[in-house]
Amino acid sequence: MKNFIYETPTKVYFGKDEELKVGKIIREFNPKKVLIHYGGKSAKASGLLDKVKKCLEEENIAYVELGGVVANPQLSLVRKGIEFCQNEGVDFVLAVGGGSVLDSSKAIANGVANPDIDVWDICLGKFTPVKTLKKGAVLTLSAAGSEMSNSCVISNEETGEKRGYGCSANRMDFAIMNPELTYTVSPYQTACGAVDIAMHTIERYLCTGEDTYLTDAIAEAVIKSVIKAGNDCLANPEDYEARANMMWASSLAHNGLTGCGRDFMLVVHQMEHEVSGMYPEVAHGAGLAALWCSWARYVYTANIPRWTQYAHNVWNIDIDFEHPEKTIEKAINMQEEYYASIGMPTNLKQLGVTEDSLEKLALDCSRNKTRSLIGYKPLAYEDILEVYKMAYNA
Amino acid sequence: MKNFIYETPTKVYFGKDEELKVGKIIREFNPKKVLIHYGGKSAKASGLLDKVKKCLEEENIAYVELGGVVANPQLSLVRKGIEFCQNEGVDFVLAVGGGSVLDSSKAIANGVANPDIDVWDICLGKFTPVKTLKKGAVLTLSAAGSEMSNSCVISNEETGEKRGYGCSANRMDFAIMNPELTYTVSPYQTACGAVDIAMHTIERYLCTGEDTYLTDAIAEAVIKSVIKAGNDCLANPEDYEARANMMWASSLAHNGLTGCGRDFMLVVHQMEHEVSGMYPEVAHGAGLAALWCSWARYVYTANIPRWTQYAHNVWNIDIDFEHPEKTIEKAINMQEEYYASIGMPTNLKQLGVTEDSLEKLALDCSRNKTRSLIGYKPLAYEDILEVYKMAYNA
Repeated sequence: MKNFIYETPTKVYFGKDEELKVGKIIREFNPKKVLIHYGGKSAKASGLLDKVKKCLEEENIAYVELGGVVANPQLSLVRKGIEFCQNEGVDFVLAVGGGSVLDSSKAIANGVANPDIDVWDICLGKFTPVKTLKKGAVLTLSAAGSEMSNSCVISNEETGEKRGYGCSANRMDFAIMNPELTYTVSPYQTACGAVDIAMHTIERYLCTGEDTYLTDAIAEAVIKSVIKAGNDCLANPEDYEARANMMWASSLAHNGLTGCGRDFMLVVHQMEHEVSGMYPEVAHGAGLAALWCSWARYVYTANIPRWTQYAHNVWNIDIDFEHPEKTIEKAINMQEEYYASIGMPTNLKQLGVTEDSLEKLALDCSRNKTRSLIGYKPLAYEDILEVYKMAYNA
Repeated sequence: MKNFIYETPTKVYFGKDEELKVGKIIREFNPKKVLIHYGGKSAKASGLLDKVKKCLEEENIAYVELGGVVANPQLSLVRKGIEFCQNEGVDFVLAVGGGSVLDSSKAIANGVANPDIDVWDICLGKFTPVKTLKKGAVLTLSAAGSEMSNSCVISNEETGEKRGYGCSANRMDFAIMNPELTYTVSPYQTACGAVDIAMHTIERYLCTGEDTYLTDAIAEAVIKSVIKAGNDCLANPEDYEARANMMWASSLAHNGLTGCGRDFMLVVHQMEHEVSGMYPEVAHGAGLAALWCSWARYVYTANIPRWTQYAHNVWNIDIDFEHPEKTIEKAINMQEEYYASIGMPTNLKQLGVTEDSLEKLALDCSRNKTRSLIGYKPLAYEDILEVYKMAYNA
């Protein structure tokens, strides 16, 4: 087991009606002025935004609003939000929405607290913020895990770059999670969420590291639970228990727990960021599903025992000790079938990616051939290109 | 799934040599003066105490020391520590030791920060502290989980009462966990630790609550991992990986994770506190082992499906659907055999408890017949007495 730091300061308020506490919770921070940051029409149409505003008003908390966050949240809105907060004297950011809204809120909070730094340099990892504004979230989507993660992913629509960075400043001070708020999430987005949650866990599970059987067993628990919860949510969108297990899985998958003692690089996430960076209409979870199986088939031979464990413990496949690769291939096929069964793509064509873009994707992902993606099998530019090609032709 | 609040602010530094960071970590809090609080000779003899002091000196951090914490930490030393801190102007408490040292440190920190309140009233739950001193721990024992828990248990040696209370103020700001520091823990104490960790999880698992399959699967992961790790630690006390998995399990078992969405009352813990309150030489883990099987046999009929799940998922027992009670009894027997195999008692006689004390234990545990212990089968005075009798005669 490798040394690790585990830090999950986010206080979680989980369950029915918990969003009604938001005023009292923010009151504890005694903010001067709150930015309520949100996405499109759903937060308004559902009445959630009005409910949140009412809670703040009851506590006499001043606030301003900024909506308009889109999937793959954009740098331009982050910049606008920073300027808006500076002009308004905002010292607390409240995200009301899913992972994109939360990430946009994190970037704004970091930008406001570090006025001498260009916020895109923070996204590029050139500067790691220590200072940030206090911030919290009312979550409406089980997927990205941003509510407890130290991660923030922003897209620069001018350059087509999508960049994620991790740091302590990115942790939310609190997260309110009422599973009922996810009842209206569409089947497609629900499936994307299930993929994203599963992948946050699987990617850590299949990163390098040994002798982490407690972490492994927890990861297996999260993966199996989200597969069950995902199916149940799709079968009945108002199944509270399914929505609840899925929502809690989204947080645990990405708050650090499922990787304790292991190395950490979300390789398929890195490859997917290029895809949805170039094709902003691609949902992140769908991009992950389209890439994962090809990546798996390309890399699994680098650590047969680990992948065999995955096949056995996650997919309950009896191990063929003479030909463990058959066991592994079965597992990859089962995961592929699962993705297809919940309406997810299993190749890049289904996402509208064109063949002539594969080289640029690989170039960008390898930062112009200057970095490899680390795992049991490190992936340099040529490997990354090969995986994109496999995922295109799958 | 019930609503819940999840709060684990403790920052964990886990792994080899992490204790060497203690000076730099405490420096971030900028304390005026630190109390180094510890137990008996082992922290001194091992050189750990000197190492910690050197790290503080390198950061020019002023400190004073107070040793002498015993198993089942005593109120008298807590009072002494509070007075000492007040006289010395201490504003940070560093615990160096196991759960008893950590609990004593928490009680001191709460006492110093609330000078108008009698610290025993805090232990009795009459006053819930909000203010507390900043505090951290260098952990040397995998057992109580105090390093991440909101729990603190203190014994009043004048009255024979042992009382635990939970509150946010009890959370450590940081915990340093180097599994190597547990190499010298005796086989008996190692086994006690394994029992305590398993029981923190099992008790939550067998408390009331439904539709928590993610939490359940995580709990099963912790229980199975600690059984494996416990065995491996006993087979080879310097097995780093076993010590590491056990140490991490101790934190996760009791930081709240294994009970999310379920009710929370550690029933057997409550019953054990009376035993080691009356018999201070009884190690907490040993007391739990002596009680658990009798408790299990007394209560399991109140929720056959839940206990069947436990038998199947933890002990891999095929379910006898016609006679599920047989499945459950097998599981209880297996756990009893496991406890015996690691040198733990499975009845109260083995701990030196005398038959004439059982009524007083039951009276104290039921707070003179004014409370029941809550679970699938609530336990009033008569039930508690019956379980003590069963555990005596087991």
